[in-house]
Amino acid sequence: MLLDKINTPSDIKHLSVEQLNQLAEEIRQFLIENLATTGGHFGSNLGAVELTLALHQIYDSPRDKIIWDVGHQAYVHKILTGRKHLFPTLRKFKGMSGFPKRSESEHDMFDVGHASTSISAAMGYASARDIAGEDHKVIAVIGDGSMTGGMAFEALNHAGHLGTDMLVVLNDNEMSIAPNVGAISHYLTKLRVDPSYSSLKKDVVNFLHKFGDLGDKTTRLIDRFKDSFKSFLVPGMLFEEFGFTYLGPINGHDLPTLLTYMQRAKQTKGPVLLHVVTQKGKGYAVAADAPDKMHSVSKGFNVVKGDAPKVVKPAPPQYPNLFADTMIELAERDPDIVAITPAMLPGSGLIKFQEVFPERCFDVGIAEQHSATFAAGLACGGKKPVLAIYSTFLQRAYDQAIHDIAIQNLPVTIAIDRAGLVGNDGETHQGAFDIAFLRCVPNFTIMAPKDENEFRQMLYTAVNHAGPIAMRYPRGGGLGVQMDTEFKALPIGKSETVREGKDVAILALGSMVHVAQKAAEALVESGIDAKVVNMRFVKPLDEELLLDLAKQGMRIVTIEEGSTQGGMGSAVMEFFALNRIYGMEIYPMGLPDLFVEHGDPQQLLDHVGLNVDSVVELVKTMAPLKQKRA
Amino acid sequence: MLLDKINTPSDIKHLSVEQLNQLAEEIRQFLIENLATTGGHFGSNLGAVELTLALHQIYDSPRDKIIWDVGHQAYVHKILTGRKHLFPTLRKFKGMSGFPKRSESEHDMFDVGHASTSISAAMGYASARDIAGEDHKVIAVIGDGSMTGGMAFEALNHAGHLGTDMLVVLNDNEMSIAPNVGAISHYLTKLRVDPSYSSLKKDVVNFLHKFGDLGDKTTRLIDRFKDSFKSFLVPGMLFEEFGFTYLGPINGHDLPTLLTYMQRAKQTKGPVLLHVVTQKGKGYAVAADAPDKMHSVSKGFNVVKGDAPKVVKPAPPQYPNLFADTMIELAERDPDIVAITPAMLPGSGLIKFQEVFPERCFDVGIAEQHSATFAAGLACGGKKPVLAIYSTFLQRAYDQAIHDIAIQNLPVTIAIDRAGLVGNDGETHQGAFDIAFLRCVPNFTIMAPKDENEFRQMLYTAVNHAGPIAMRYPRGGGLGVQMDTEFKALPIGKSETVREGKDVAILALGSMVHVAQKAAEALVESGIDAKVVNMRFVKPLDEELLLDLAKQGMRIVTIEEGSTQGGMGSAVMEFFALNRIYGMEIYPMGLPDLFVEHGDPQQLLDHVGLNVDSVVELVKTMAPLKQKRA
Ligand SMILES: [Mg+2]
Ligand SMILES: [Mg+2]
Repeated sequence: MLLDKINTPSDIKHLSVEQLNQLAEEIRQFLIENLATTGGHFGSNLGAVELTLALHQIYDSPRDKIIWDVGHQAYVHKILTGRKHLFPTLRKFKGMSGFPKRSESEHDMFDVGHASTSISAAMGYASARDIAGEDHKVIAVIGDGSMTGGMAFEALNHAGHLGTDMLVVLNDNEMSIAPNVGAISHYLTKLRVDPSYSSLKKDVVNFLHKFGDLGDKTTRLIDRFKDSFKSFLVPGMLFEEFGFTYLGPINGHDLPTLLTYMQRAKQTKGPVLLHVVTQKGKGYAVAADAPDKMHSVSKGFNVVKGDAPKVVKPAPPQYPNLFADTMIELAERDPDIVAITPAMLPGSGLIKFQEVFPERCFDVGIAEQHSATFAAGLACGGKKPVLAIYSTFLQRAYDQAIHDIAIQNLPVTIAIDRAGLVGNDGETHQGAFDIAFLRCVPNFTIMAPKDENEFRQMLYTAVNHAGPIAMRYPRGGGLGVQMDTEFKALPIGKSETVREGKDVAILALGSMVHVAQKAAEALVESGIDAKVVNMRFVKPLDEELLLDLAKQGMRIVTIEEGSTQGGMGSAVMEFFALNRIYGMEIYPMGLPDLFVEHGDPQQLLDHVGLNVDSVVELVKTMAPLKQKRA
Repeated sequence: MLLDKINTPSDIKHLSVEQLNQLAEEIRQFLIENLATTGGHFGSNLGAVELTLALHQIYDSPRDKIIWDVGHQAYVHKILTGRKHLFPTLRKFKGMSGFPKRSESEHDMFDVGHASTSISAAMGYASARDIAGEDHKVIAVIGDGSMTGGMAFEALNHAGHLGTDMLVVLNDNEMSIAPNVGAISHYLTKLRVDPSYSSLKKDVVNFLHKFGDLGDKTTRLIDRFKDSFKSFLVPGMLFEEFGFTYLGPINGHDLPTLLTYMQRAKQTKGPVLLHVVTQKGKGYAVAADAPDKMHSVSKGFNVVKGDAPKVVKPAPPQYPNLFADTMIELAERDPDIVAITPAMLPGSGLIKFQEVFPERCFDVGIAEQHSATFAAGLACGGKKPVLAIYSTFLQRAYDQAIHDIAIQNLPVTIAIDRAGLVGNDGETHQGAFDIAFLRCVPNFTIMAPKDENEFRQMLYTAVNHAGPIAMRYPRGGGLGVQMDTEFKALPIGKSETVREGKDVAILALGSMVHVAQKAAEALVESGIDAKVVNMRFVKPLDEELLLDLAKQGMRIVTIEEGSTQGGMGSAVMEFFALNRIYGMEIYPMGLPDLFVEHGDPQQLLDHVGLNVDSVVELVKTMAPLKQKRA
């Protein structure tokens, strides 16, 4: 095994092409075997094997800076930079991250997780280098999907302007997570599939040469042709217009070509874009045939068939599924309902909705900012748009949520999936901040369902609400509760008391309601009688409930799967303070003021103290309950 | 006067070109006279006179939807849509907005203020139209500066993909607020200035025709040429690559040409981009000569010379100026300090810094997302980046502040200018949310200076801090205080007591410190002895101070020029609650939960109750102080 001897990038520097090809084979086998045990991103890593080998042979990491966009294609990079032995801990609590991470290796140059950041980060590195008068190389590796993100364009525009040395490797596998959207995607396809487009340069030169002696006027014309056509004579003129030297497209699994072009890129001055075509799932038939399905795999999948592990007991409905089904039901009754998502068609569940209502479903690609303002425009045009987006990606559309949705008080529903701790993807993907960052925005209604039945009713409530409304729900599924047959709108700003009690009130939001219920049951043992309230709404708060609790002098615990800083607990305290109600004993439970790493969701919740035991513990130590009751 | 008879767009429908030209003259005179009295955006409106006339003659507003990007060029649109009489109230409290506003007119289709939203909004309108089977037209009018914003690119990409009918008018005046940055700008310049580029089409066709009978192989080659060159044969191939039909560039002050091209655009299927070249400040020599200076004018400027009104008493230093001077001083001592701004070079004051340190100053254009991640990359490369950005535009870079700066705990300083109420620009520009949206983000230090001397010390503190740090400061200038000669770092998380007192503690932030001080002085009259604390830091809070106040059972008023929801007041309450300190009487003063409209800053502060009187009033009505003291 060659792989056994590879511990740093320097170990591959002198390998021959044959050896590199053998190593590629071994790495693929290593990935397939390891991911079958741990789960993880699959297709994108299999597709980037040769590309990563070539990068590490031609460039000198960490002196040269290789920056991975999104980072879910960096497993091979991790293998080559001394982290083979960590693969059994991949994405596990306290184990190796699924993304590049500066704290993990000197070869990881920029922490990632979200798309389209690599060119900006690389430009930062390149500009720092230029100011210092250093001469190392800077390389951004970005997928075709990430190229649709506006910030990638902003960075290209700036890079073309500065003109400094940097290489952008466009790793084009014709899809991001799902097949790509947009004009850029069509453009790349054209570059890939039209051979005349690529070979045209030669023909043009020959043609012009052939007629090169036809008199003065024609010669001048030809010169003008040559000049003006200069940017056209290579196929990637769109990138050339941005001031980049375009190389490619080349086959990203053909090592000799990769090495040749990368060497050429290294010697070219100014910004260079190398267009590399790869196949997602390359070398593993199942993944290559269904790249969408095999983007990310669960541990225990069948290596031969690619099947997901068998689930033994019938699972309660998963939120993406329920979201799709409910959207279809609602859209059947209301022709104004439309759905938008920035590249989360499969993840959000909307892919199912799209099959039924293709003309009312818009996947705008990785373009969060546009998705929110597009939704605002649809609302202005009389539609009832539902924007499906993960909590962490909504951060990308924050200004648009304020400036385009909230200021105009438009009836846009934001279905915030993956709100709270998402687990194995770690810091970059946790949905910790949505309550805090939306709560300060006027006109927004914010809610969270306690279970799948309430989810369905909330979505119904949302699409019939006259202003901006956000509903946040966790990764995963419901609790297996009975489902209502009829839709019934929930009263805005009203909570639901799910357990009466006289010693303490636990005000719980969304995923924390069942935790609070279990805690209340456990507290009975200690002689503590806890009231449990399903708050449903963070904004507006149920003021009647709060005034009532104040009248009773009830101690309060608030609990939410979101940042404690600025969260629902703060909202409750603000309410009392603004109403000059003093002396309440309130403890706000929520996510602590730190970035929560990767791990199993339950492990992480235990880690941050958002579980039944923590609630029980806290309530027990609150101001002496017994005494007051006596 | 033709203008006297113009009250709705239908009044210009049958005007001849001569009459339109006369009307354009009258409108320019109207604008110059009115803005001399009220102030307002100047150059961009003078540049858009003919364009707006043409739009309203060719299209049928409000049936056809005209959407203005940014909106500071929509004064002529306001004149033509029945709002001439409101110009004396322009940008005044309860008067006419400086931007399009749906609540103001049925002709205003989308509220704006921030750049680059118009194509997204127009696509929303267009898609809503398509679903409803209607046939009106949708037009986005966007400036060249706004085109560099990533979300405009995201929208172009999506529009090319959908292929629906819409017109994007690119109003290209070769600058946004300041001259543009980036490859797109170079590209547009090429289209504008190179006549061979535009006239090439004709030449190519002639040339190909001339050699059209040269045998089979050549003919086929020529055919291939024609095909492959199709997108090149018009000059705007970059836009053509996006799936747009490109028309232009045309002279945006030549009405016959404008009308002809707009008519053609109206009849073209699918997305069309009409490239119109205009001159900022057209028709007013002073503005046209110094378009940068005359982007926005203060009331009372000299109409003949374009001079700003004379200021009688020497003004205390304005923050942008002070920012530039301090940055220069700091950068002279520390070669690692670099500055970045997304198109706020003049506004932030950095333009002065750029003159001294051109290679250490980066204006990235309207590209907020990129600016933050670029800063993160610079920090990774060993620099100490200072990102200069207005509070309202930082919303655009929120995810990047979290994902690229905070998670990696990078030493990036965000200099948040225009934090708090900005005045005449209204809702879209108020800096209300930065405390709330940054406070929940781990690793961030957040501070605000009470005056210009502290501003200078805070900037020094920031660039020497090891992690992400934001300093927010208001629009306008300091208080005229004595300046320290030496730099001295402020201890992180430590407040400054500026007045001792025993009845109540007013914890004030930034711009509110002097308000609190004045209130304390006024309270003496009522026998109330108020302590005033300059908090300096929202995060981390001065915990020692808070514990001390708790020990004394002191009543607390917090006051900040930012959203009450999730603001510093909430932070104080969270601290006490998490430390199980109950029974404190706290009242959080801040901006209320609504979007604050335009008006003079002091008027607005009075309106929302952030002034001396409100503090006095509040403190007097707090729980009976005298009683407790007795
Ligand atoms: Mg891809
Ligand atoms: Mg412009």
